[in-house]
Amino acid sequence: MKKLIKNVTVITPSGELRGCVGVDGKLIDYVGAAEPAGYDEIIDGKNALALPGFVNSHAHLPMVLFRGYAEDMALQPWLFEKIFPAEDKLTPELVKWASRVAIAEMIAGGTTSFSDMYYFCDEIISAAVESGIKANISRGVSAFAETDPAKLVSFRETGELFDKFNGAGEGRIKIDSCLHSEYTNNEAICRAMAEFSAEKRSVLHVHVSETESEHRECIERHGLTPTAFLEKCGCFESPVLAAHCVWVTPEDIAILAAHGASVAHNPSSNLKLGSGVAPVTEMLAAGVNVCLGTDGCSSNNNTDMFTELHLASLCAKGFRRDPQALPATQAFALANAAGAKAQGRNDTGSLEVGKCADIVLVGTDAPHMHPMYSATVAVVQSARAADVRMTMVDGEVLYRDGEFKTLDVAEAIFEMEKLVDKTYR
Amino acid sequence: MKKLIKNVTVITPSGELRGCVGVDGKLIDYVGAAEPAGYDEIIDGKNALALPGFVNSHAHLPMVLFRGYAEDMALQPWLFEKIFPAEDKLTPELVKWASRVAIAEMIAGGTTSFSDMYYFCDEIISAAVESGIKANISRGVSAFAETDPAKLVSFRETGELFDKFNGAGEGRIKIDSCLHSEYTNNEAICRAMAEFSAEKRSVLHVHVSETESEHRECIERHGLTPTAFLEKCGCFESPVLAAHCVWVTPEDIAILAAHGASVAHNPSSNLKLGSGVAPVTEMLAAGVNVCLGTDGCSSNNNTDMFTELHLASLCAKGFRRDPQALPATQAFALANAAGAKAQGRNDTGSLEVGKCADIVLVGTDAPHMHPMYSATVAVVQSARAADVRMTMVDGEVLYRDGEFKTLDVAEAIFEMEKLVDKTYR
Repeated sequence: MKKLIKNVTVITPSGELRGCVGVDGKLIDYVGAAEPAGYDEIIDGKNALALPGFVNSHAHLPMVLFRGYAEDMALQPWLFEKIFPAEDKLTPELVKWASRVAIAEMIAGGTTSFSDMYYFCDEIISAAVESGIKANISRGVSAFAETDPAKLVSFRETGELFDKFNGAGEGRIKIDSCLHSEYTNNEAICRAMAEFSAEKRSVLHVHVSETESEHRECIERHGLTPTAFLEKCGCFESPVLAAHCVWVTPEDIAILAAHGASVAHNPSSNLKLGSGVAPVTEMLAAGVNVCLGTDGCSSNNNTDMFTELHLASLCAKGFRRDPQALPATQAFALANAAGAKAQGRNDTGSLEVGKCADIVLVGTDAPHMHPMYSATVAVVQSARAADVRMTMVDGEVLYRDGEFKTLDVAEAIFEMEKLVDKTYR
Repeated sequence: MKKLIKNVTVITPSGELRGCVGVDGKLIDYVGAAEPAGYDEIIDGKNALALPGFVNSHAHLPMVLFRGYAEDMALQPWLFEKIFPAEDKLTPELVKWASRVAIAEMIAGGTTSFSDMYYFCDEIISAAVESGIKANISRGVSAFAETDPAKLVSFRETGELFDKFNGAGEGRIKIDSCLHSEYTNNEAICRAMAEFSAEKRSVLHVHVSETESEHRECIERHGLTPTAFLEKCGCFESPVLAAHCVWVTPEDIAILAAHGASVAHNPSSNLKLGSGVAPVTEMLAAGVNVCLGTDGCSSNNNTDMFTELHLASLCAKGFRRDPQALPATQAFALANAAGAKAQGRNDTGSLEVGKCADIVLVGTDAPHMHPMYSATVAVVQSARAADVRMTMVDGEVLYRDGEFKTLDVAEAIFEMEKLVDKTYR
């Protein structure tokens, strides 16, 4: 089945063009101004932009349950009085439906892949496979007293996830290794996970220097910043996906760059929790692969990549008081190409022949999309999730004109709300 | 014609309730849990929230023409190489259509009133009257060498606007007095405008301490901050609407509070231009009436109050690193009640019996609105402009389910794009 999107403005790595995007099976087989023959299905891209799907590089999907559950609180009571007790009540059934709601929100907002760190991972994976979205899934590993990985449930579960699910969903599911963070682990487990990840050749997903106190306390504990400590443990033998990095030092940035690490920038969450703003401009200048994430819905309260992209631009300019910082083209790539790279998916993230057909159509009919001098600027500064007209992953349409093709979203919302009533209201 | 919105979650000043909002003519005549009889038209509010319409307290509507026109530039070249030359080419025809596009965007996004400062004001007013939206309109007054108000075109036009349009559109149009700013005026004109405004008993709309250099140079010129200078000129004899106030000092905040002034906070614009972040928490603590604005589309690039509300919350928490700052209920009121007060409209801004029926329905069907623990939190943190299902002003439905009832938006976009092609592309 060959599909042709025509009459569309295409955002490619080398610029914008008016024309067509051809899809053969899972792959893009044409990008150009002329209209080629030989396609079975024509998708009219009139008054729309075609862009590579967004990659949400740092999420905790089941936390959609806690969207608006605990607001305007200081970090410690927020965690200990509200979030941790709420997480104690989680069940596979709650995670099952919450994951579907979160994935629906992402697909409707142009996200074609996400990187998650949580637990009940088999439920998250099952929702991802059913929906058709791509996902890098990791089990958050934390260890306090326990230093033997074989005795640590989360570590064992990580191994089981690799055995059962790596490459599931025709390759759309990848399992990542994970350390929740330095502050929730000991050195033995960090070293064991570094080894495990290197052996699996997997991405290693980890929270790094999200808050000032976390960063400072690591130095007090180890005489090293979180980044330097993880380096000492051998973690950078794997491609690291470091979430947050709000408080990284210039030396940390040099370490991240030297090892080709990726950093998931989560501007909404970092602002809302009062953590600060990551030095995105500095990290990009040093060559770090900065991508974007929404974090969990307890601290966001959305899984909306348009908002993160817009905020990444505003924060880069606003916090350093430099309106030239992070220009639109550079910002745009954080949301797709950089995310794909962070996930170890070199076959997607841009609209080019031979890449996966992970394509989003953004409508330009609404007043806020006029006038348009640059499609890239319009996506970064003006477009909103609701402008998404179609989301395609591996050549399959998952969402179009308000209709979800794979998920029964009404059912997922209904079942989730029923359980939330019982458990949290 | 009496209208009843039923089955709806109503956000009132005293909290949220499930029930009905009744409208008799222009006014709200019922808010309560029970369903009253005697209404002609029933509007089903199932799966929706009813809230007071947003007041966009600082806008330059015709600048919608420059949405994305000049991006990622330093302030001076942005102004002198791009924006000022583009403004030189403005015509009444361009302003006519651009104003309609901007108003359509606002109405579709739940804005029921706006405060504008620009020129070609008769075109802006005509668009506002046609659309049914409320508007406080001011002609930006600036004077360099000229000290005689009678010889200043912009000053004379302000007088003409009062004579011709104050109270137009059945009172929906109000004319404000205006000084563009301290840095674009001399003391004689500031004093003359202060007197004029006091005599007219009008709001006085003025840019104040938007950038650090503007603030510093005023001190160099006058030995006073912009706020103190305006006080010296007698401007605070009128209710002042001061836009931006990013760089106001504690002494300035005390002056603003003592005079019952309003401050229009424009977080998107202040971040995008690298101006900084206004001390919203401090101003609110001092008793200043802080409201929200979008500023012009050259520095935003939207007229979307949901984005400003969300950003106001995130910036208050993020810039001071205090997650408890500006809690949801307080943030919510910036976008409606405080804006109405800033406009001198004491008859609107909240859903209460006797207030104007300026009502917005926000749909809660989409995945990102689930679960919902608080409607107010959902509006501040999760809802987006596209969730707006209905916008009503003075009891008249201006927008519902994607349809504009008063404006021909397709025509406005078409005509604006044609002129933009000729003039700016």
